[in-house]
Formats: sequence, structure tokens, C-alpha cells
Amino acid sequence: MKKISNYKKWDYNQQEDWCFQSKFTQSPINIQTDQVQPLIDEGNILVNYDTVLSDVFDTGCAIQGNVSGHAMINGRRFKLKQFHFHAHSEHTIDGTKFPLELHLVHQAQNGHYAVLAIFIQIGKNAPDLEPIVESFHTLNLTKSLNLEGILPNNRTYFHYEGSLTTPPLTENVEWYIFKSPIEISQSQFQRLTERYSQNHRNQQDLNQRPVLYKEIN
Amino acid sequence: MKKISNYKKWDYNQQEDWCFQSKFTQSPINIQTDQVQPLIDEGNILVNYDTVLSDVFDTGCAIQGNVSGHAMINGRRFKLKQFHFHAHSEHTIDGTKFPLELHLVHQAQNGHYAVLAIFIQIGKNAPDLEPIVESFHTLNLTKSLNLEGILPNNRTYFHYEGSLTTPPLTENVEWYIFKSPIEISQSQFQRLTERYSQNHRNQQDLNQRPVLYKEIN
Repeated sequence: MKKISNYKKWDYNQQEDWCFQSKFTQSPINIQTDQVQPLIDEGNILVNYDTVLSDVFDTGCAIQGNVSGHAMINGRRFKLKQFHFHAHSEHTIDGTKFPLELHLVHQAQNGHYAVLAIFIQIGKNAPDLEPIVESFHTLNLTKSLNLEGILPNNRTYFHYEGSLTTPPLTENVEWYIFKSPIEISQSQFQRLTERYSQNHRNQQDLNQRPVLYKEIN
Repeated sequence: MKKISNYKKWDYNQQEDWCFQSKFTQSPINIQTDQVQPLIDEGNILVNYDTVLSDVFDTGCAIQGNVSGHAMINGRRFKLKQFHFHAHSEHTIDGTKFPLELHLVHQAQNGHYAVLAIFIQIGKNAPDLEPIVESFHTLNLTKSLNLEGILPNNRTYFHYEGSLTTPPLTENVEWYIFKSPIEISQSQFQRLTERYSQNHRNQQDLNQRPVLYKEIN
């Protein structure tokens, strides 16, 4: 039998004094791979994106592209809202940063966000990315693109709960960060970073959040 | 072709000035049934709870019971952390409040919370609830209980994204509020509310959040 615990008693007649805690689950973070835990959920990510870029514009901090489509993430449907790049990467793996990080921003019917993040390194030319590179460089719409083709072949990912990395920094964002980077050519990199070459938020404290890992081959 | 938009430009060299927005997704709320939208996800809720009450104690604001177990909610696994009652109900349906609201608080591997909420009205005696009523009244552990048996037969629910309803009022909580109330006897109600008869948080602004609805028969 337990007596009254040491829990703090909240006064229901003084609710205006209740303290609200937030800003403990911000993004981006460094992922320490020796600290990650395997995700127990099935955790499949299936995407179905349109091949038409419906809009491309300069937000003042990045070039943003809009494409219709959705992702099924661990059983739930998320609508693709927009995508954009950060230079250099906002997330890092064991302290390693990449030249670029692509964010595919999705939102579920209940308002919850899910971002698929893809690291990009410089190497071979990426044909599937070329229409996007040209559109983001010229701010003209392309005739067609293959956004799904950009995702890395190996879909193994890291997952954690964080925030948007630009104001309002909202903390209802599920992050899915693919472990395998994709490659683009030096020319593609130059065109993608011509306007914004330093648009990455500082890294945030993990505050003991679990970072999960899903092996998908 | 689009020119630079009216988006506010964030200064990456002055990140300490970035404004963080929160406290717009608090709980509880009133559910306006003529405003809800049908949930497009499969949205099944399956529970698998242990039959042993491992702990019961007074938190200073409620009596809390701990039982092992988990729920599969829309494809994801959540661990049952604890359960407790609020008098009267914290959520309301079209302004209607109920004498009690049971909260089954779960947490996923990524830290995200999901609360199953059950409205309770006074009527027939609830045999499956009796071991809990006695434990919560005496603060002695029962020999066995059937927590699953307490859930309403009709699992139709309302769903929205909110917060904990006690400090720290954390905003990473998925709410699943069963539409059908369960019944307990007047004697059960009296024993459950003997220590805490007024432990309900004030209702919070919806702030244009979608409230979803899943019909399950």
C-alpha cells in the first residue's frame, strides 16, 4: 500500500499558475549512431508523388518547390506539402555533415508533420534531380519530374520527434532521416546553392530523446 | 515564374532572435460534432493490457493506477504508462460534460503520447470496473482486473492532437476519445470521487485544429 507520493499537487483553482514546458524537442540534432535503438514498429515508408512541379519560389531563406502527393508512414497517410534544401546539412551523423539536406515536408490529416530528410553529397550527376535543379535555379516550372526517384535506394532511416527548423519551430514533427546519402554533381550543387549557401539552423540539444533506427533493404 | 514571395526572411546569423511558437495545441477541448471530419486512415485501436495492477497511489491531484500492457493505434505500438480519472470530464461533446473521464495514458518508443479517453456516466454497476474502484478507494492492490473490459463496446472515437492536461502540459499527445460513454453505479462513482471530486482542467481554444472522427462498430 502506497501513501501520498511526492508528486507536486496542482491547484485546480489556480490553473493560470500552471507551468507549461516546451522547447525541449527541437531540431536539428546530431545523430550518435552508437546510441540509436531499433524501431519496434513495422515502420514502412511508401511514397506516391505527382510528376508535376506545381510551384517554385524563393521564400527568402530557401527555394521551395510544391508537388502533390502523399506518403504512407508507419500506417498513416501524410500529404506532401513542399520540399526545399538546406546547405550544409542541418542534421549530422556522428558529427559528420553533408553538403546539402533535402527536406520533403508532409502533414497528416490531424495536423502532425513528418519530414523525410535526404543527405546529399557531391559525386555523380543525379539525372532524376536535374529537372528540380533547373527549376530551383531559374525559378521556372519544369514539364515533369520524378521526385520518388531521388530517394536513396536503401531506405534505412533514423527517426526521432523534433520540430520545424525554421520559425515558428513548431514541435509536432516526426523526422525520418535516410542513412544513405544520394549523390549530385558539382554543377548541380552549384546551381542549388547559388542563392542560399548557408541556410542551416544550429543544432539543438537532444534532451534525452530516443533516436530510433529502422533497417530497410 | 514567381518572384521572391512575401515570406518572412529568417536571419541564419541571428538565430537567437527566432521566435518559437507553442501553446496553440492544448487540451482539453470541447468537441463540436458538426465540425468533425472523418479520419481517412484505417485508425484501428487494439489493446492488450495485463490483468495485474502493479501500483496504485495518490499523485496529489488524482489516484493513479499502473498496469503493464500496450495498444496498437493506427499501426503504431504504444506502451500503457498509467491510468487515472478526472471529475467531471475534461473533454465535452457539444458542450455536454460527463461525471467522470478515464484517461489511459500510453507512450510510443519515440516518446509521443497517446491517451485513450472514456466518458463515464452514472447508471448500471460496472463489474469490470469494480476491482479498480476498490483499489482506487482503499489504495490497496487488487488480485486481478480486466482493464480491457472497461472500454466501450462501440469503439467509435474522436481524434485530435493536443497536450497533457496537467503540468508540464506537454504538446505531443494524440487524443482518442470514445464517443460512447460507459456506465458505473452511484456507489462506484462515490468511491472514485471521494478524494478528488473536482480535478478537471479548464477547456482550451481549438485554434483551428482539425478534430477527426472514426466510426468503428
